[in-house]
Amino acid sequence: MRALVAHEVLRTAAEQGTGGEVVDGSLRVPYADVYRRALRLADSLKRLGVGSGTVLGVMDVNSLRNLELHYASSMLGAVILTINFRLSAHDLLYTIRHAEAEWLFVWEGFAPAVGKLRSAFPKTWVWLTDGPQSPEPGTPSCEELVESGAEHLPAEADRVEETDPFSIFYTTGTTGRPKGLKYRHRDMLLASLGILHHLALHPAGASAGSRDVFMPAIPFFHIHGWGAALFVPYLGAKLVLPGRASPAEQLRLIQGEGVTWTNMVPTQIHMLLEQADAAGVQSLSGLKVLTGGSPLPTGLAHQMRERRMAFSLIYGGSDQLATSISVLPPGVEPDSPEAWEALRREMKPLSMVDVRLVDEEGRALPRDGHSIGRVLVRSPWLPAGYYKDPERSATTFVDGWFRTGDLAVTTPGGAVYVVDREGDAVKSGGEWIATGVLEALISEHASVAAVAVVARPDERWGQRPLAVVQARGEVTEEVLRAHLMACVENGRLARFWLPDSYVFVDALPTTSAGKLDKTALRTMLV
Amino acid sequence: MRALVAHEVLRTAAEQGTGGEVVDGSLRVPYADVYRRALRLADSLKRLGVGSGTVLGVMDVNSLRNLELHYASSMLGAVILTINFRLSAHDLLYTIRHAEAEWLFVWEGFAPAVGKLRSAFPKTWVWLTDGPQSPEPGTPSCEELVESGAEHLPAEADRVEETDPFSIFYTTGTTGRPKGLKYRHRDMLLASLGILHHLALHPAGASAGSRDVFMPAIPFFHIHGWGAALFVPYLGAKLVLPGRASPAEQLRLIQGEGVTWTNMVPTQIHMLLEQADAAGVQSLSGLKVLTGGSPLPTGLAHQMRERRMAFSLIYGGSDQLATSISVLPPGVEPDSPEAWEALRREMKPLSMVDVRLVDEEGRALPRDGHSIGRVLVRSPWLPAGYYKDPERSATTFVDGWFRTGDLAVTTPGGAVYVVDREGDAVKSGGEWIATGVLEALISEHASVAAVAVVARPDERWGQRPLAVVQARGEVTEEVLRAHLMACVENGRLARFWLPDSYVFVDALPTTSAGKLDKTALRTMLV
Repeated sequence: MRALVAHEVLRTAAEQGTGGEVVDGSLRVPYADVYRRALRLADSLKRLGVGSGTVLGVMDVNSLRNLELHYASSMLGAVILTINFRLSAHDLLYTIRHAEAEWLFVWEGFAPAVGKLRSAFPKTWVWLTDGPQSPEPGTPSCEELVESGAEHLPAEADRVEETDPFSIFYTTGTTGRPKGLKYRHRDMLLASLGILHHLALHPAGASAGSRDVFMPAIPFFHIHGWGAALFVPYLGAKLVLPGRASPAEQLRLIQGEGVTWTNMVPTQIHMLLEQADAAGVQSLSGLKVLTGGSPLPTGLAHQMRERRMAFSLIYGGSDQLATSISVLPPGVEPDSPEAWEALRREMKPLSMVDVRLVDEEGRALPRDGHSIGRVLVRSPWLPAGYYKDPERSATTFVDGWFRTGDLAVTTPGGAVYVVDREGDAVKSGGEWIATGVLEALISEHASVAAVAVVARPDERWGQRPLAVVQARGEVTEEVLRAHLMACVENGRLARFWLPDSYVFVDALPTTSAGKLDKTALRTMLV
Repeated sequence: MRALVAHEVLRTAAEQGTGGEVVDGSLRVPYADVYRRALRLADSLKRLGVGSGTVLGVMDVNSLRNLELHYASSMLGAVILTINFRLSAHDLLYTIRHAEAEWLFVWEGFAPAVGKLRSAFPKTWVWLTDGPQSPEPGTPSCEELVESGAEHLPAEADRVEETDPFSIFYTTGTTGRPKGLKYRHRDMLLASLGILHHLALHPAGASAGSRDVFMPAIPFFHIHGWGAALFVPYLGAKLVLPGRASPAEQLRLIQGEGVTWTNMVPTQIHMLLEQADAAGVQSLSGLKVLTGGSPLPTGLAHQMRERRMAFSLIYGGSDQLATSISVLPPGVEPDSPEAWEALRREMKPLSMVDVRLVDEEGRALPRDGHSIGRVLVRSPWLPAGYYKDPERSATTFVDGWFRTGDLAVTTPGGAVYVVDREGDAVKSGGEWIATGVLEALISEHASVAAVAVVARPDERWGQRPLAVVQARGEVTEEVLRAHLMACVENGRLARFWLPDSYVFVDALPTTSAGKLDKTALRTMLV
């Protein structure tokens, strides 16, 4: 009987001899060799005292050594803490201490930036290096640990239970301290493989199968690259790890390695397309992108279409994992205008996932395609709560349902269309105005580079929408009002949703994860 | 948190509103209504005393009511016993008693055949009927139970654990008493969904996705129709249930309902193609068949190809569930001659499944494409052993590995090519001769309708092969010897594998499952 534990995935890939390999820079390593290297790393770590429950912090880009560390940690029953290196120094240290990390594995590329951390965290350090040598005498490199280890599966590996913890990571919310999530092996496996299976079972933009070549550009500290660190080895497919690749290097990898599948937030896609423009690359035909994390601007979607790329949207997060992904609805053919619209909006829940909309009294709302409600989620992989935070857990994970804090509409066909964060939406005269929908419509205007809509207190209505616009060239408030009035007239927008006022700025603030920072914006403006 | 229990699958299909439906005769029932009917059936059964652990025997063809009973049973924590109605009356009663069934649900179409069973099994009977009326006064029909039940999920449903038993069924071996297997919810779900995921992730002949229309022709008593009773509702796809359809009716359903995917043993495919010939249907393009259970004769494979059908082979069984399925190897294109050969022979283990070959001393054999060894299997869904048979369990399920009793070769790419049953193979001078391989080569001759090779005792070699041939028209021993000599000369056959003698018969004996009955043959001939 094999359990749903992470290292069984790599063991299968190694033993089945799939022919797949992992590419990292000049390294090309078949899965059987990745497995052998993980065995040796686990053996070395074991002799240095790593065991069941030891928390191993890793601060690295998407690299082979990071991948191997995931699996070596699993073999010992240890817990991998994937550290968001984009956090402030203060939050970064907070998460490492909160997670009770005993080891830190840090990429040498971060050495200049982590001087303070080095002294604040006196426990065991290991340097992750591109070559064999550690940059610091007396502190080993991970490669040295791989080289000195014996190539056999530690006895601990077969005692790891699927209900044992596999990883910890922290949310990158815009308010308060980062919140910790500790996931069990089976939860992380079922959710990660759930993404892959969804993309294989349903006709999706970002469809996936064993003949694809995968380059996860979402960092592993975001839910293991949205699951790719687990589901690509599970599939045995070719995995290209981009490290700290610039958009130019990403483009070269896509073309040189035959990458057909990637995941990126919209900002990353935008940068890749700018690079493609600069390099004179007209078409990226055959490249499929799973995107999410923030709304996909209409203009960016059109740019992808022009370059013959395909995409799906994923909805989920650190505290719920994968919940839904856009696919082609029944009867809709690829490349049709309906397909294009559906893939931009309508997300289908993953198998075994329940998505429910409720009103403010908790009553279920109909799946009618227009009622906006709060999104509750139930799935096989929901965590019990936030790590060491019973109070917040009790208000967020209620009766087996996760309160996402998002607002959405659902269609009679079961699709979910997330329109806003509850904290971001505007409550005008008792009715929700979805700022995400407004932003999408405003950004359709060619002279809008970026836009954010925030709530402004209003004596009569409670709140009213304010649009903050980053312009591309010349644009005036009157022009945007006329643009939105056209949307009202053709039925795409309710009249009471029209913003009361407009502010023009040079740049919009973003969070460490590259998302629009509406909290900062509200502080600045309202 | 949702657990991996069977009724959660139907609940998801109902709540996600996939647009899929179940077709049975003139009935077309959306999944939401199938779910509601299952709720009402569960409510009625609960009020009649069915609860956690109650064993519900069902003797039925693949019908909507059978499907609903699966899920109603799951909601109550009861255990469904899927009865092989092709067993002898003696074995049939044995399995019902051995499983400790307390209820029997019997299709009215079997009424004429089960008179004896009716008196031998005095516990609760329910008739499964095509209309609402029970054929027997005082004994309810299942439809009456559906109609009288309340439409709410019983409280028991959320207490069912994924480690609770879901179903019991019995092997249809050719020797000894049927052996019982009792599977837990998670095992049956993971194995069933594993088949679907494999067919979606890898380029297979019988590839599957949510746009396919499924008609499982494997009876539900064979591992729930090789998992289809679970994985089609999970997918939310259209499910056509053929009942006791004749080949002519199957053909009409395939054409009328747009069936694109079916599962059948080779005998069923043969009958379908005969029917297609009779009906003048030249092409069954777009029809994908998952086949297995017995070797696929070369001639039948060619007939499928001529009709533009696609297929994959599945390897597994009642006591190991799904183990491997043929897919296109890396680099092989569909419709190429290599694809054709690979799909006929090379089976790729499902994800998270280990297949190991060992010699008689239990030493692992190399994956070299020619060493024949005993097949051991390990997977997430292996049972602990046979139900109430600790002795046989102890020799068959050893150290977490299932001893399949099969012989195979494995390729460097990890594919598995099963060549024979250990008990069927010929051991000549200490070397295995795979009768399955010999049969495939002999059946390539146009004048051979069917062939079986069995071992005959031999003083010098221990055993030697004897070919038993069912001819199609005129054929002689000399003709077949010449045909096989050509195979020796072009390297497809070792000279010492050549059968020593040939016997011609009118028909070969088969088991209740429609498989060639080599035990009967050996008894007759050797």
